[in-house]
Amino acid sequence: MALNTLRDLYVEQLRDLYSAENQILKSLPKMAEAAKHPELRQAFEAHVTLTEEHVRRLDQIFTDLDEKGSGHHCKGMEGLLKEANDTVKEKGDSDVLDAAMIANAQRVEHYEMAGYGCVRTYARMLGREQDATLIQQTLDEEGATDEQLTTLAERVINIDAMRDM
Amino acid sequence: MALNTLRDLYVEQLRDLYSAENQILKSLPKMAEAAKHPELRQAFEAHVTLTEEHVRRLDQIFTDLDEKGSGHHCKGMEGLLKEANDTVKEKGDSDVLDAAMIANAQRVEHYEMAGYGCVRTYARMLGREQDATLIQQTLDEEGATDEQLTTLAERVINIDAMRDM
Repeated sequence: MALNTLRDLYVEQLRDLYSAENQILKSLPKMAEAAKHPELRQAFEAHVTLTEEHVRRLDQIFTDLDEKGSGHHCKGMEGLLKEANDTVKEKGDSDVLDAAMIANAQRVEHYEMAGYGCVRTYARMLGREQDATLIQQTLDEEGATDEQLTTLAERVINIDAMRDM
Repeated sequence: MALNTLRDLYVEQLRDLYSAENQILKSLPKMAEAAKHPELRQAFEAHVTLTEEHVRRLDQIFTDLDEKGSGHHCKGMEGLLKEANDTVKEKGDSDVLDAAMIANAQRVEHYEMAGYGCVRTYARMLGREQDATLIQQTLDEEGATDEQLTTLAERVINIDAMRDM
């Protein structure tokens, strides 16, 4: 698709995020299963529900735009989830591997924060306030997830990983 | 490499960032060449100098750790730069394509912010204050670059892209 207008870019970026969210949905159960700390497993499991809600919001936006959400594969998220998948298979101490999974998950969150930040700006410029409100909700939730992971790492998991030295 | 200790994870994550920075160094000239707005071209060109400094800081940290920086390929950054490379080749209006390149670049910055945030935390836990100071400098510069790109998008490039509708 040629990017002739800001609306074209808006739709393409939404499709990129739609692909990213759907790829995350497939990876989260594997990450939850590999997590040793119950708090981390629960965080990944809770993020499945949140991600499903993010997909629903994107579906709503695509319906309002009269556009399809499918047809784009997010190569960025593919790379980030390859890293996460490598960690799941990696050998070592389980506390350290949990810390590594958090590092992967925070890269995933940051990708989404960057992406949703861009589409929120485009939505506002295009006068699509309803879309912008939905996008802002997702953006806030991705930011909160990132902070939650930082707290979990700094207060529990990294400390346990340090004990194994 | 098995991740048996937090130090193992620290070294692996530093290598991931080392690979990421070196991949970015290869892509930035193509992105600068493709940019239509002189402000964006200059931002990418200035980021080459900054990225070289980030590589030097990592070299310093590896020397102090008595570890090699090479030997890890960052698959996350590979995916993000594939996206950026696709945008460089994409057809469309040049203002819209500049806006798309900013969206790619902000994903790259966010990857680095997430990654350097993790290694700064590990460095402090491991009592490596000198490393943490160097990492914090890079982290601050990545954050400033991201803000600079947001300002450029919102004040100039997205507005030009809107005019083409």
